[in-house]
Amino acid sequence: MENFDPATLKFDDRGLLPAIAQQHDTGEVLMLAWMNAEAVAKTLETGRVTYWSRSRASFWIKGETSGHTQKLVDMRIDCDRDCILVMVDQEGAACHTNRRSCFYTSVTDGEVELLKPMA
Amino acid sequence: MENFDPATLKFDDRGLLPAIAQQHDTGEVLMLAWMNAEAVAKTLETGRVTYWSRSRASFWIKGETSGHTQKLVDMRIDCDRDCILVMVDQEGAACHTNRRSCFYTSVTDGEVELLKPMA
Repeated sequence: MENFDPATLKFDDRGLLPAIAQQHDTGEVLMLAWMNAEAVAKTLETGRVTYWSRSRASFWIKGETSGHTQKLVDMRIDCDRDCILVMVDQEGAACHTNRRSCFYTSVTDGEVELLKPMA
Repeated sequence: MENFDPATLKFDDRGLLPAIAQQHDTGEVLMLAWMNAEAVAKTLETGRVTYWSRSRASFWIKGETSGHTQKLVDMRIDCDRDCILVMVDQEGAACHTNRRSCFYTSVTDGEVELLKPMA
């Protein structure tokens, strides 16, 4: 065991790394967004998953406006320390299309199919 | 249903997008790597997950040297079309540390813990 310092992660030239959100109990991959070191720290401090919005250039506390919050259950770092997996408890839809997961487009045998929203 | 053209995905200024690999039946998130449009096309054509290695600047057919291949089961695109989720059947370890998943470092209450490899 050692103390964790977000500054020891490897960020890209924009100061960001990709963060995958996974529903902790079902295993469903919900979305991918980006974090800077401060977003990682805020996520750990508050227990509410906080990204960095590239389009708005500001912190994005997931669900702050929609109510579709992500409660942090566990944070995992990959072997290269340049990617994060947040195990979360997702309230409602993670996707802005009101689907549970952003990954609803399936490509099979060269054809695109939109998966139906979960019940 | 429509035909899928990898060029319609949104790649970053390096021509890459992040690709998450998830074991299709257990839901375990195995790794994150990068693909360019041609790697996406190769993955779909061959059924073997193929990334673009940023460090080697070459295609990386997962498992080509290690034997730890990833067979494509389903490819999912996210709502912004700038990230891919590959549902795979992973042979052996996905991680170069010989662990099943690259996400073996857990951060809880500010402390770092290395998760044990799966049996």
